[in-house]
Amino acid sequence: MPECKPDAERIMSRCEALAQCSEEAGALTRIFLSAEQRAASALVTTWMQAAGMTVKIDAIGNVVGRYEGEHPGLPCLMFGSHLDTIRNAGKYDGMLGVIATIDCVQVLADQGRRLPFAIEIVGFADEEGVRFGATLLGSRAVAGTFDQALLKARDGSGMGFIEAMSAFGLDAGRISEAARRKDEILAYAELHIEQGPVLEAEGLPVGVVTAINGFSRARMTLTGYAGHAGTVPMALRRDALTAAAECVLAIEDIARNEPDLVGTVGRIEVAPGAINVIPGSAVFTLDVRSPRDAVREPGLARMLAACEAICARRNVSFAVERLQDHSATVCAGWLMSQFDAAVAAEGVRLMHLSSGAGHDGMAMRAIADIAMLFIRCEGGVSHNPAEAITAADAGTGARVLSRFIENFQVPEK
Amino acid sequence: MPECKPDAERIMSRCEALAQCSEEAGALTRIFLSAEQRAASALVTTWMQAAGMTVKIDAIGNVVGRYEGEHPGLPCLMFGSHLDTIRNAGKYDGMLGVIATIDCVQVLADQGRRLPFAIEIVGFADEEGVRFGATLLGSRAVAGTFDQALLKARDGSGMGFIEAMSAFGLDAGRISEAARRKDEILAYAELHIEQGPVLEAEGLPVGVVTAINGFSRARMTLTGYAGHAGTVPMALRRDALTAAAECVLAIEDIARNEPDLVGTVGRIEVAPGAINVIPGSAVFTLDVRSPRDAVREPGLARMLAACEAICARRNVSFAVERLQDHSATVCAGWLMSQFDAAVAAEGVRLMHLSSGAGHDGMAMRAIADIAMLFIRCEGGVSHNPAEAITAADAGTGARVLSRFIENFQVPEK
Repeated sequence: MPECKPDAERIMSRCEALAQCSEEAGALTRIFLSAEQRAASALVTTWMQAAGMTVKIDAIGNVVGRYEGEHPGLPCLMFGSHLDTIRNAGKYDGMLGVIATIDCVQVLADQGRRLPFAIEIVGFADEEGVRFGATLLGSRAVAGTFDQALLKARDGSGMGFIEAMSAFGLDAGRISEAARRKDEILAYAELHIEQGPVLEAEGLPVGVVTAINGFSRARMTLTGYAGHAGTVPMALRRDALTAAAECVLAIEDIARNEPDLVGTVGRIEVAPGAINVIPGSAVFTLDVRSPRDAVREPGLARMLAACEAICARRNVSFAVERLQDHSATVCAGWLMSQFDAAVAAEGVRLMHLSSGAGHDGMAMRAIADIAMLFIRCEGGVSHNPAEAITAADAGTGARVLSRFIENFQVPEK
Repeated sequence: MPECKPDAERIMSRCEALAQCSEEAGALTRIFLSAEQRAASALVTTWMQAAGMTVKIDAIGNVVGRYEGEHPGLPCLMFGSHLDTIRNAGKYDGMLGVIATIDCVQVLADQGRRLPFAIEIVGFADEEGVRFGATLLGSRAVAGTFDQALLKARDGSGMGFIEAMSAFGLDAGRISEAARRKDEILAYAELHIEQGPVLEAEGLPVGVVTAINGFSRARMTLTGYAGHAGTVPMALRRDALTAAAECVLAIEDIARNEPDLVGTVGRIEVAPGAINVIPGSAVFTLDVRSPRDAVREPGLARMLAACEAICARRNVSFAVERLQDHSATVCAGWLMSQFDAAVAAEGVRLMHLSSGAGHDGMAMRAIADIAMLFIRCEGGVSHNPAEAITAADAGTGARVLSRFIENFQVPEK
């Protein structure tokens, strides 16, 4: 029997092909319920069918492929990743996981092999949330946690959610039909590029994910007093920007000194915003993440307290608006140990790392234990056209995934 | 003979009347070469004529009133301030100086008194530079330093400078006719609100200006590396905003620790500017001022060196673009001492202070020695509809000015 393994070159060329389904020539942008989504779904469908899978588009537009087990109707080991992109995206974020997993099923199909469980692969229609400002729409629908309030959402052009669904040929009133039962799914697993620099720094092609970081987001508003840049002596100023600058550095310092904690100020705006006017107000955002809620929550509290103390000392008023809080999503130990074994069998040093970015597993955790395998990406760059991986790493990742599938064992209850 | 003094109530009510010449109801905005400028010039003309002055509109649209001395054609003691405003301005910045000085001439006219020199008052058509982005257009024309490159400028609506002049009834080709000869002018003096909080903090109605601060302006561009707020560990970041924050605080620290120096970061923008993305670039402005060039220049150099060192340590690239440098404009000692005497005669404790803001004297210095008298303004607030002064302070200022005029002596050469 010839060697049957995933084909790294085929995976890479399919990533290229899928990247052609874009609303812009020369750049990749593919949003939810677009003509490009339809084209991408059609491509993925042909690849799934070639791998012996039956394929349907579910009630929210996800592409769902199923490879039956030893007899029809068995519970499935479910894989997934997303087929939508941010604007001006890279070619691997999301798509690689779908394409690599199809290649693993292709290996089984080429051998005519059936396992004691079915395999499903879901190409989620929306994870990035570009169109309607809410993320994970595809996986939330599958997990049965789709937020009905979104039916009233409008996209940037003013088109309503229901109308956009209808234009795509879907009925927003039937989204609940995409939901799956817990007893249909043995586990949910996802291969994804790391989107960070850790594996590259460690010299490793793959790593096993421990948790998807929890995050907290807030917006701070500092109000001092605007004044003429020439006439107000330094000692009489209540400069909102210098206060904000001190807060930004305090946040950085707290995050630097706590393992497993990152804190980012990604936006800042000052008003009035003129070269010759002392800023009277400054508004900035805070994004804090950790794989451990017990680190994130006190870390955030220390950051907010530091900002408040800085502002009080500077006689600048301080207000904080909490925007979002999401607990960490912990990967299941029994799934991680099976990924660990597959990595070891592939001769790769084992590395555990957390995911700083959000993934569909955050939604899928509501109906299944989850696990993730990360693939090294160049420079840690993602959400950027420069996103890059090597074919060798794609091959290693797919072979680890293939071993994981072939050796998959459900723990005894 | 009845007491002849400037009339504070008349000054205040004329400030109110002039503030009605605005392009917006309920807010004061009066830009160069506008219908509102024409209305304001007409009002000022009537007040000047009532004070026995002959009035003309010069080649750039300044209102120029002249009160002859003991015989016609004598060199003049020139006063001035500006009649244009920023958008949504206060009622005193500029206008108060013109109106208060007219009241001093009114005192002479009421007494039928002639001095051994003429008095001129110029209501400058543009000081703020709102329309064409270049300041001091009125006084530069009088000083003979109008920049011909401005003839090619366009305003925010796309109208060209020459066309705007023509629509106002002026010929841009004849601006040089507004220029005055040095031997026509004995000195230039200006009464103006302080636009800062120093006199209020000292409990004084007026102060004598030592110099108009020199200023330097620059724009700094910091380039780090954008990255995902969740996936990039703190130690691997090259965050342009945290680098900029450290620069902002270094600038503040240097300015705080040097008397006679202020430094302001008034604008900052980061890119990409998303809550979940580490800023890859930050651009911020710097405005540095001092009454002493020997303080400003090394202070600025220390600030730029500190920013460069911070960026180098953080592996963030640093570029600086120098936008403007203007030397301090020093007030003439022989004029200051005559103002000092007038302040003392009014029974007010003498305070010398520098001007943090720019004034028409910066241009007039090219053809005359200059001096300025500052009037206290509430809370140091200016360039704001909340700009406020008391009638008592306006009266004190006008009486000091009146004494200065009546006792004016040209030093022997």
